[in-house]
Amino acid sequence: MSEAVIAHLAGQRAAFRERFEALLRLPSVSADPAYAQGMEATRGWLLDRLRSIGLSDVRTLDGGGQPAVYGAWTGAPGRPTLIIYGHYDVQPPDPLDLWSSPPFEPTERDGRLYARGASDVKGTTLMAIETVAGFLAVEGGCPVNVKLFLEGEEETGSPSLRAIVERHRDLLAADAVLSADGARASAEIPAVNVGARGIAKVEFSVRTAAKDLHSGRFGGVTRNALHEIAALVASLHDAEGRIAVPGFLDDAMPMTATQHAEVAAFPLDEAALYAGIGGGRHGEPEYSVAERLVLRPTLEVNGMWGGYTAAGSKTVIPCLAHAKLTMRLVPGQDPDRVAEAVRHHLLARAPEGVVVEFRALGGGSPASTLAPDHPLLRAAEAVLERTTGRQPVRVRIGGTLPITAIFQEMLGIDTLMFGFATADEDIHAPNEFLRLSSIDEGLRAWPMLLSDLGRLSAADFDRFRIPPG
Amino acid sequence: MSEAVIAHLAGQRAAFRERFEALLRLPSVSADPAYAQGMEATRGWLLDRLRSIGLSDVRTLDGGGQPAVYGAWTGAPGRPTLIIYGHYDVQPPDPLDLWSSPPFEPTERDGRLYARGASDVKGTTLMAIETVAGFLAVEGGCPVNVKLFLEGEEETGSPSLRAIVERHRDLLAADAVLSADGARASAEIPAVNVGARGIAKVEFSVRTAAKDLHSGRFGGVTRNALHEIAALVASLHDAEGRIAVPGFLDDAMPMTATQHAEVAAFPLDEAALYAGIGGGRHGEPEYSVAERLVLRPTLEVNGMWGGYTAAGSKTVIPCLAHAKLTMRLVPGQDPDRVAEAVRHHLLARAPEGVVVEFRALGGGSPASTLAPDHPLLRAAEAVLERTTGRQPVRVRIGGTLPITAIFQEMLGIDTLMFGFATADEDIHAPNEFLRLSSIDEGLRAWPMLLSDLGRLSAADFDRFRIPPG
Repeated sequence: MSEAVIAHLAGQRAAFRERFEALLRLPSVSADPAYAQGMEATRGWLLDRLRSIGLSDVRTLDGGGQPAVYGAWTGAPGRPTLIIYGHYDVQPPDPLDLWSSPPFEPTERDGRLYARGASDVKGTTLMAIETVAGFLAVEGGCPVNVKLFLEGEEETGSPSLRAIVERHRDLLAADAVLSADGARASAEIPAVNVGARGIAKVEFSVRTAAKDLHSGRFGGVTRNALHEIAALVASLHDAEGRIAVPGFLDDAMPMTATQHAEVAAFPLDEAALYAGIGGGRHGEPEYSVAERLVLRPTLEVNGMWGGYTAAGSKTVIPCLAHAKLTMRLVPGQDPDRVAEAVRHHLLARAPEGVVVEFRALGGGSPASTLAPDHPLLRAAEAVLERTTGRQPVRVRIGGTLPITAIFQEMLGIDTLMFGFATADEDIHAPNEFLRLSSIDEGLRAWPMLLSDLGRLSAADFDRFRIPPG
Repeated sequence: MSEAVIAHLAGQRAAFRERFEALLRLPSVSADPAYAQGMEATRGWLLDRLRSIGLSDVRTLDGGGQPAVYGAWTGAPGRPTLIIYGHYDVQPPDPLDLWSSPPFEPTERDGRLYARGASDVKGTTLMAIETVAGFLAVEGGCPVNVKLFLEGEEETGSPSLRAIVERHRDLLAADAVLSADGARASAEIPAVNVGARGIAKVEFSVRTAAKDLHSGRFGGVTRNALHEIAALVASLHDAEGRIAVPGFLDDAMPMTATQHAEVAAFPLDEAALYAGIGGGRHGEPEYSVAERLVLRPTLEVNGMWGGYTAAGSKTVIPCLAHAKLTMRLVPGQDPDRVAEAVRHHLLARAPEGVVVEFRALGGGSPASTLAPDHPLLRAAEAVLERTTGRQPVRVRIGGTLPITAIFQEMLGIDTLMFGFATADEDIHAPNEFLRLSSIDEGLRAWPMLLSDLGRLSAADFDRFRIPPG
């Protein structure tokens, strides 16, 4: 029964907060090698915690990149075995000067805890760990078998996750994945995620001369790499924001009536959305804002640079310019085919004298969708209905869960997201925060969910198993 | 008569070489405070030399930055008074590892003297000083009144030159400026510079939201600052490279038949030009490459940046992007009006939801043109015809000469460039050199020029005087 565990966790709230802040102080930025020590320290902290709560086989799982942290409890024969997924790495904190308090110094303001990683996703990851700790402390065992798997490369696109899963396929055998990642669409309206957009990542450079040129000597007779990259980037969309890359949309499945209805069922306060971001409306006018957020693909320039960028001016004609692009994908689209369409578009549009060097960055994944009658989905809906008194809405997210695709492809199992972060918490941006009230909600719902799933048998998951690819 | 002076200087060639090498050994890098001692030592060396050749009022002129070195001889009443301009500062020597011999250790190879500053512009500066020294030594006086003015900030954009001229307006009263700066277009074909393009400098930022956004959360419904800045930059030109900013070209004087003929008279090896830069042809097809290099305005993006630019990828929708622009101007164009046309274009093109913040950066100057019958120009052409046996070609340069604009605006007088550096001598790059033969040419031509100008009266310059701005 989960009540005793919930009560126990409620009594441990100060200790939770202390552990949460300790974890947030460790700067685990996976994208930047300068943070290697922070990554190592975070793994050490997690290994200690998993050992001290009584998990077995606690260790790191290495795939050639940032290792994952692993620990298991498998004392419930016949019950379902769940991988509990979280990640301990965080986004880079730049630009630092826009943070109101230091990114790795957790700071409470107005019921929110501000720190890089608070929302994405050290918060729910720790709720999941402490839920397991609660069952082991109070009841001496868990309702289900759990395999805690804490990734260290989620923010860099999980480059070695496939290698890790490949090397530890037997160790990771399970019936489904319960993920601490994936933010709630709203702090008020209960919702369960049933799918995510996929992603593809590319970058390209434009070269127009062998060296930077002096504009007094050569201005007017040759190309400028920044002008050329601007023209190429501007050609990726039409004036209304539709993607203008031939072939990009070819494999995107048309939106179904059910999807259309599900999107419409979740109330989206568009005025609040635009007020919150301080930006204006833009994008495909054929679709609603809510539809565009989850069921339409995107193509974004995430970074672009070249030439002289320091103070003052320099009369240079830059010979080299760079851009980084990511694309969000919907069901039907393949990351490699989409990247290839972009490559083809850029090369076809580059005029003579403009050399485009294109690199597909890997780390892509297709969109994912959870079956409507999946046991994890049903259990999550039941728990949320009990804790909130409202029937949860089925939603998709606009973000990407590469792990969902990888676990599906390599282990043949589905993933349910049961995160308690909320979508407005400025993840990947300055001043990321977590609502402190979400900790109370998560530390009630997670024990209930494990308890409910403990009433099922491993066999209940059999028909949802996908033959591994 | 200049013959005796020329003969005297020819007999002093070893002493000239010794002084030239001493001057080149002094590392007078104005851009880098680490070279403060080298700057001070260079000023000391020049002050000593100006005193020892018999100039009066020898001193430094301070405007709050690197002081200029000054010395005068004004014993020719009724004759023209000329500011002889040179600069003693040099470009930084980086990258050091690309130099074949140390940048501040003058080294002769194949009739060339390699050292930082040899070509730009310690060589011709010393020729001018030694020409004055020759007249004073041989004839006890100069054909004209001279005010030697040696700047210490040319390589950093002359930031305090206006202040120096402002503080010493009376001291610097003169009929015209004879500049030792300004490279010859060719070592073989005699040419006189009759003008330079002007410059205007601006920068702008594009904001599309109050903060950077996560593309999984907001991708598809709002604008991306990098997409918007790309569209704006792409709109500055048409596909063939014509400037597409309304009003930009309004005041540009149409090319005259004389200018057209002058440009055509100077042979340009286009194949060598394009091979040298490793870039392709681009720009207004209505004009020849040679015309575009000197008599057509340009609008270049010198730097552009925004979003995530480090390794790997980051799924951010950047809310802010930046660009720096400079424009080369032709006669008729006003830097402020041109900057205003760009500002208006950008603001008019920015869609709703895109905020453009525009900053005109000062430091602009209009194009300069020497009147076809200016006494300095006529004298220089006559001297070059006598020394080379060929009629010199009138050329313009595509770069900008801020000092020409400053002397014109503040003192109301014109500048003639009479440099003996050559355009191919790798100034601002590793392995800068001066052809040793140029010393012989300069030490014949400079005495002839001063001698010829001594046949004029100060009044001959009156009608070319521009009312100071």
